Amino acid sequence: MQPVRGPLASEPQTVLVPRFCASLMEMKLPGQEEFEASSAPRNIPSGELDSNPGPGTSPSPDGPSDTESKELGVRKDPLLFIQLNELLGWPQALEWRETGRWVLFEEKLEVAAGRWSAPHVPTLALPSLQKLRSLLAEGLVLLDCPAQSLLELVEQVTRVESLSPELRGQLQALLLQRPQHYNQTTGTRPCWGSTHPRKASDNEEAPLREQYQNPLRQKLPPGAEAGTVLAGELGFLAQPLGAFVRLRDPVVLGSLTEVSLPSRFFCLLLGPPMLGKGYHEMGRAAAVLLSDPQFQWSVRRASNLHDLLAALDAFLEEVTVLPRGRWDPTARIPPPKCLPSQHKRLPSQQREIRGPSGPRLTSAEDRHRHGLHAPSQELQRTGRKAPWYPSDFLDALHLQCFSAVLYIYLATVTNAITFGGLLGDATDGAQGVLESFLGTAVAGAAFCLMAGQPLTILSSTGPVLVFERLLFSFSRDYSLDYLPFRLWVGIWVATFCLVLVATEASVLVRYFTRFTEEGFCALISLIFIYDAVGKMLNLTHTYPIQKPGSSTYGCLCQYPGPGGNDSQWIRTRPKDRDDIDLGLINASLLPPPECTQQGGQPRGPGCHTVPDIAFFSLLLFLTSFFFAMALKCVKTSRFFPSVVRKGLSDFSSVLAILLGCGLDAFLGLATPKLMVPREFKPTLPGRGWLVSPFGTNPWWWSVAAALPALLLSILIFMDQQITAVILNRVEYRLQKGAGFHLDLFCVAVLMLLTSVLGLPWYVSATVISLAHMDSLRRESRACAPGELPNFLGIREQRLTGLVVFILTGASIFLAPVLKFIPMPVLYGIFLYMGVAALSSIQFTKRVKLLLMPAKHQPDLLLLRHVPLTRVHLFTAIQLVCLGLLWIIKSTPAAIIFPLMLLGLVGVRKALERVFSPQELLWLDELMPEEERSIPEKGLEPEHSFSGSDSEDSELMYQPKAPEINISVN
Amino acid sequence: MQPVRGPLASEPQTVLVPRFCASLMEMKLPGQEEFEASSAPRNIPSGELDSNPGPGTSPSPDGPSDTESKELGVRKDPLLFIQLNELLGWPQALEWRETGRWVLFEEKLEVAAGRWSAPHVPTLALPSLQKLRSLLAEGLVLLDCPAQSLLELVEQVTRVESLSPELRGQLQALLLQRPQHYNQTTGTRPCWGSTHPRKASDNEEAPLREQYQNPLRQKLPPGAEAGTVLAGELGFLAQPLGAFVRLRDPVVLGSLTEVSLPSRFFCLLLGPPMLGKGYHEMGRAAAVLLSDPQFQWSVRRASNLHDLLAALDAFLEEVTVLPRGRWDPTARIPPPKCLPSQHKRLPSQQREIRGPSGPRLTSAEDRHRHGLHAPSQELQRTGRKAPWYPSDFLDALHLQCFSAVLYIYLATVTNAITFGGLLGDATDGAQGVLESFLGTAVAGAAFCLMAGQPLTILSSTGPVLVFERLLFSFSRDYSLDYLPFRLWVGIWVATFCLVLVATEASVLVRYFTRFTEEGFCALISLIFIYDAVGKMLNLTHTYPIQKPGSSTYGCLCQYPGPGGNDSQWIRTRPKDRDDIDLGLINASLLPPPECTQQGGQPRGPGCHTVPDIAFFSLLLFLTSFFFAMALKCVKTSRFFPSVVRKGLSDFSSVLAILLGCGLDAFLGLATPKLMVPREFKPTLPGRGWLVSPFGTNPWWWSVAAALPALLLSILIFMDQQITAVILNRVEYRLQKGAGFHLDLFCVAVLMLLTSVLGLPWYVSATVISLAHMDSLRRESRACAPGELPNFLGIREQRLTGLVVFILTGASIFLAPVLKFIPMPVLYGIFLYMGVAALSSIQFTKRVKLLLMPAKHQPDLLLLRHVPLTRVHLFTAIQLVCLGLLWIIKSTPAAIIFPLMLLGLVGVRKALERVFSPQELLWLDELMPEEERSIPEKGLEPEHSFSGSDSEDSELMYQPKAPEINISVN
Repeated sequence: MQPVRGPLASEPQTVLVPRFCASLMEMKLPGQEEFEASSAPRNIPSGELDSNPGPGTSPSPDGPSDTESKELGVRKDPLLFIQLNELLGWPQALEWRETGRWVLFEEKLEVAAGRWSAPHVPTLALPSLQKLRSLLAEGLVLLDCPAQSLLELVEQVTRVESLSPELRGQLQALLLQRPQHYNQTTGTRPCWGSTHPRKASDNEEAPLREQYQNPLRQKLPPGAEAGTVLAGELGFLAQPLGAFVRLRDPVVLGSLTEVSLPSRFFCLLLGPPMLGKGYHEMGRAAAVLLSDPQFQWSVRRASNLHDLLAALDAFLEEVTVLPRGRWDPTARIPPPKCLPSQHKRLPSQQREIRGPSGPRLTSAEDRHRHGLHAPSQELQRTGRKAPWYPSDFLDALHLQCFSAVLYIYLATVTNAITFGGLLGDATDGAQGVLESFLGTAVAGAAFCLMAGQPLTILSSTGPVLVFERLLFSFSRDYSLDYLPFRLWVGIWVATFCLVLVATEASVLVRYFTRFTEEGFCALISLIFIYDAVGKMLNLTHTYPIQKPGSSTYGCLCQYPGPGGNDSQWIRTRPKDRDDIDLGLINASLLPPPECTQQGGQPRGPGCHTVPDIAFFSLLLFLTSFFFAMALKCVKTSRFFPSVVRKGLSDFSSVLAILLGCGLDAFLGLATPKLMVPREFKPTLPGRGWLVSPFGTNPWWWSVAAALPALLLSILIFMDQQITAVILNRVEYRLQKGAGFHLDLFCVAVLMLLTSVLGLPWYVSATVISLAHMDSLRRESRACAPGELPNFLGIREQRLTGLVVFILTGASIFLAPVLKFIPMPVLYGIFLYMGVAALSSIQFTKRVKLLLMPAKHQPDLLLLRHVPLTRVHLFTAIQLVCLGLLWIIKSTPAAIIFPLMLLGLVGVRKALERVFSPQELLWLDELMPEEERSIPEKGLEPEHSFSGSDSEDSELMYQPKAPEINISVN
Repeated sequence: MQPVRGPLASEPQTVLVPRFCASLMEMKLPGQEEFEASSAPRNIPSGELDSNPGPGTSPSPDGPSDTESKELGVRKDPLLFIQLNELLGWPQALEWRETGRWVLFEEKLEVAAGRWSAPHVPTLALPSLQKLRSLLAEGLVLLDCPAQSLLELVEQVTRVESLSPELRGQLQALLLQRPQHYNQTTGTRPCWGSTHPRKASDNEEAPLREQYQNPLRQKLPPGAEAGTVLAGELGFLAQPLGAFVRLRDPVVLGSLTEVSLPSRFFCLLLGPPMLGKGYHEMGRAAAVLLSDPQFQWSVRRASNLHDLLAALDAFLEEVTVLPRGRWDPTARIPPPKCLPSQHKRLPSQQREIRGPSGPRLTSAEDRHRHGLHAPSQELQRTGRKAPWYPSDFLDALHLQCFSAVLYIYLATVTNAITFGGLLGDATDGAQGVLESFLGTAVAGAAFCLMAGQPLTILSSTGPVLVFERLLFSFSRDYSLDYLPFRLWVGIWVATFCLVLVATEASVLVRYFTRFTEEGFCALISLIFIYDAVGKMLNLTHTYPIQKPGSSTYGCLCQYPGPGGNDSQWIRTRPKDRDDIDLGLINASLLPPPECTQQGGQPRGPGCHTVPDIAFFSLLLFLTSFFFAMALKCVKTSRFFPSVVRKGLSDFSSVLAILLGCGLDAFLGLATPKLMVPREFKPTLPGRGWLVSPFGTNPWWWSVAAALPALLLSILIFMDQQITAVILNRVEYRLQKGAGFHLDLFCVAVLMLLTSVLGLPWYVSATVISLAHMDSLRRESRACAPGELPNFLGIREQRLTGLVVFILTGASIFLAPVLKFIPMPVLYGIFLYMGVAALSSIQFTKRVKLLLMPAKHQPDLLLLRHVPLTRVHLFTAIQLVCLGLLWIIKSTPAAIIFPLMLLGLVGVRKALERVFSPQELLWLDELMPEEERSIPEKGLEPEHSFSGSDSEDSELMYQPKAPEINISVN
């Protein structure tokens, strides 16, 4: 089950609701974060790189009705790269050295270590800002300076009355001196380490080769501009010299900046030696100011000194202040995961027009309001997929699609093997790996060709697997012929689904709040965990452990006597293999297989026991489980380049299976293996590919099948529609629209097909589909240090999915290899899937809270707004519900478990009497009636009280690596 | 080997060098941090709670010569508890509510959740500080106000011209209204949630019961004072009303504050409604100001408004500013681990007189300077232990000593079992668990009674264990009688040690820099890991795994025939147990043990194999290893109260052994167990408790033993002296002095004794001794939220150690229980010890750096000052050295490995040609000659360049849970 989805609108059409940073904190679906981050890029305010929000004027009000306005753009301000060059070595060896740089965050040059520090949030001392302000107020401010070269610029800047001509010449020469940049490409030592600083005469205007080779250059978007701050102590100056220049036309100022970019801003801060690191800090202050989006916006539009100072004062108005006694000013703060959305800095009337596609919405109120009223674009477009059809194939012509195909293919095959193996295990071979491959290929490919949302990957999912297992034991209880009975269930499910399509029943999904979803997801996960451990322990019955006192010892190989009479114990002379020879003709100690080969008969209690298998299977089980878990965590570790980490983490299941197989093959023990038919025929012996409609069942079972079908329909509907809602979220910026009803229709048709062929049933799988979309995301390559790549959209096409399923179909010929996979390894992966799914839901986090002392609890928004005892009460109620579900699941009536879903909805409804709507809003979501019962303002609980809700941090969002390949759903 | 120690002074006496916060970051010895934190309490500037540093006047200059001046104290300012009461509910239901409180850090009341937030660094908006300043500048400032009650205070405060008498009355009534505090003891809901706010007439002067019951009260030190800030909007005021009062004599102002404390400061900030949360933020600003130590110091001494505003301006001068565009002001910053030492805020001439016992020294220069010149107090006191002797027993009369005894006893017994078991394994029973218990008890108790530093715990350590193993195989190679040979080695070692004592050779230790120590520690750890895995794999040879094709199958029980002739295979009728009956008189399929019991003889290749043992042993091995590792990490997890976490983590080895034993007993398999003699006699059969001086060895071996003894002496000297240096560090505030030479003398004497009795050899064990001291630390109970307890000293006495070793001696009678411990479990603990020791050294961290891309590397001071390639080169050289050591260790000449220590010193000396002294200072330590070769200033590499070294953060110190029980040394 999906732990995350958006509530639906009160209109009859389904509505896709964006869930943003704040809601993510509380509930994370594996694989989801990267997409979340994309629509509202995680640590940069949306659109900061390409447009600057400013007070008063509206740079690009992108309302919900025009999602593309941002990309088409009004006027955009270019990105600014800021560099601080310091004048060092007074008085003996004056030279300019780059000591810091800023794009979004600050990077400081570690002089001795010769490397750039990690990007960090810049911190300033207040006095340095104030000193800067007074220096600028008295200094030279040139806005729209027409200088075309560094020489012209320097001449303009030094035209100050206070300077004597001699000093002016000296200063000009100094300013024209080539600064020493630290160049990362040169390796161990800064490139300025050895060379003598060259003089201004050395062709100072031509950009250097290393300026072009600078790796930063590739990262900055085209059109980026540079700002340079020059600061330092200059002994021959009698008084400080400050200058701020905005060039009318940005020009490349020789080798002034480490990257060859046209310069827009130039700031000069020189003066006589003063105490402390005055100019260094002032230079930093100027650079930080220029890197602030708000200040930058203002200073680009400033027309005089007054505007400049006003922008500086506006900056000061908004700074955060940390007291010296409680904060070490030299600490470096890593870039936050979420920055305050810039729209908060706009006046409120402007904010109003920004919709779901605008910057991240954070407060419960915002989230809620858009949940109710956002228009349902996607549904309106349903059925209009035909115009996109040709481009669905042409858009796939990109290198990225190849790696996507490889990734999703491996995930799909792993899924097919695991679920196929487990289904075969659970249904005594009525399903099997071969059916799983075939079904996945046929259903998946058909869906890719027909569906409204071709990025969806069809797959066996946890709920359907659990239901199939229950259906099988149900049919066995009533001595039914399984596959014909299942065929009728499929027919009925398809019928019900078509009815649901016709009545547009998707709106009912909104009654399934997170309470219901999480309870269901937890149940499925627990079944997975229980089954995996149970199956593993079952192996110890098949392969008993030989305890010292146990009687399963001793085995003798007895040959039939010449006369077929076992009474003849005839003595012989010992043969060559005297370790197994007893000196008898008709008995030896040959191992059972060899004994049978030689026509003998193993005798004795020890003949049927295979030693060491039980513990070795346990080792394989634990190894594959822990290895998969560990590999999954590699993604967030510090080791290895990110490509390697992503690879290891994405393919964790595949690698864990391979490791298990390798271990097994290395020791060569007779562990139980995956059963694979030797040729291309159904796993169940004696049936053809078409299931007969009745078999040995009485005819009326075909009618009675409607009842289990009703239960299954609930599952299918839930699984399919919630996945569709998640996949079509606005923040994924899908261009070609969705197709909710078309997709459900396809699932219904495929249900029929797979039932007829006796193949597993398929619905859209959330995790693997998200992985598919993730592998196809288009991102801007430009990326400032400390910033995450900018999300542009997804390559929407049908080809990758189609190729994946064609490959899966072709993999049927891999079957002979699959028989080397030990079952304990698959059980381990099964356990991993259960644990991973269980740990991804908010419910688990709240259960953990039960074990944490209050002072160690994480600073969750939830805990800021709901009393701890109420949180615990809610968790306890969920635990009790889960216990009840488990009890029902353990009775013979287990098959009705989809109905229990509805029971959970009832419990959730009853919770309204225990919890206030405000509490439910934080703990769960609101049901349609509750939403109406609450006045808009009332949704923000503290609003009327102290207004402190606005202090809720957006920083508490903790990113989690997207999960991989397989999961419960 | 100890990874951490201080260099010694150039004077002949050894010198104890404090290592503070900054150096810890680079090298952490398990268990060390808590002590480090103590001398310079980790997140509160030393002495802030009891004395306030201020500019200009020196509150308590505690120089190196007078470590106790701080405790005896000049005048101390009391701690201040600050509370913000906000006026809410205008205009209908005015009431005062507490919404925030400060001691060191800020705690905010989560109104809806009804709980205090976690303590965090307060952040302010600059405008609110400026508004506060102007309000105070125009408002009423009463310094040394003589008010004796809230009523008098309110009357004083409202005596403002601008108020009409009517308004004044209204305001007074409002100010006398009892504020609603959130009281944590009342449970789910804030206590003000339901009750109607009472009027001023309700006996407002008497403190409430809940004020006394407040848990915060117990945490604040006696003498703490309160400051209250009242802020809010008041519609009937025409203009803002600001008042700041310092009471001459602090008095309890009724129920104004949540804790019943005498109030010193009172700040009133009221005014007409204004936009935003103006008064809330102003109130917070006032509270944060009052909580700043610097401001507090000034305002306590301020004599007029001018002083007050000057203090505010001084505060502003030092604040850290974060730009709005890169920092979300609502983010909450957790309390830093290290705060900037307040001495940095003092003028420099004052700082100069502060020595090692003053606040934390952080820069390399400071660390270095004190390393060179700190006086060697401890050594001067050597030999003057007698006066302390009576108090050494009287000081133990404290409840804490009981828990210390339990903890250290369990650790010692675990140590004795593990090392005893492993020694027995390695020396074929020449040593054993019984010897280990006896030796630990005798040597430990004797040391506790005689030694200079009775807190030291003697124990078998890794290097000595490794050496003993090598010595044993050496003596076997030469067919020597081991114990007599070992006796002579012991005699020689004792002699050499006495020579070292006489020549005061401790000064040589300073040539063993961290390079040497880490190489040695890594070697010992790797030997542990290699041996543990090797011993585990050896078990698979003893208990082979039965593969399908293997011939180790089949077993028959054959009874001697009536005539002793095995040719008689006589047929009988099947007996009742027909599963083992072959229908023969003289053969059956009885399991081997039963067969032997019944007088038969097992026959066949399968009789000698015990199935399942190999894999089960592997499972036990892995379980105990991973369980111990996991329990160790519990300490830093968020779950469980800290007592539980500390318990689980401290006893991780014991619990892991118990778990292993439980698992083993549960399945009842015949795993190999610890060998324990049945009665109280040496493990080696046939020897008495006294070792004969020659045995069967030629006499000249007693002279030749001097050579291995020389090697062992190097080990003993290193192990003992470095541990002693660590234990006697200044920051542990030991009062009774150390006894370096006395301790080494004791070790030498005990060496002789244990050799004569054939018991294991003992030296001081670093980790367990630190754990002993840690369990005896005296701490202040007063502890503000977010602050760590204040370290006062250690209960120095001889009794706990003595009791521990008496108990250990008594535990010899536990021996019969010990035979249930499976050996694979001990191997697992062995592996855990190796891995834990290896992961605690800086070398390992640098090896990890090799695998990390530069951008993911942690922000280590090291990396800020040394180029990455140089760091890698240093690591690579260490790896090569380690490889060479390993090769030598694998040859027959392995026993000379202590000599390789000297080789490492040579390599380190040669490194001077590769690395600059500055680089070596960061990567290692300096050798005596190098220290002299560097000018004082030159030690700070960037000092002459940009002075940016002062930006090194003290926050980068990452705390690590102290380790426990057992380790390699």
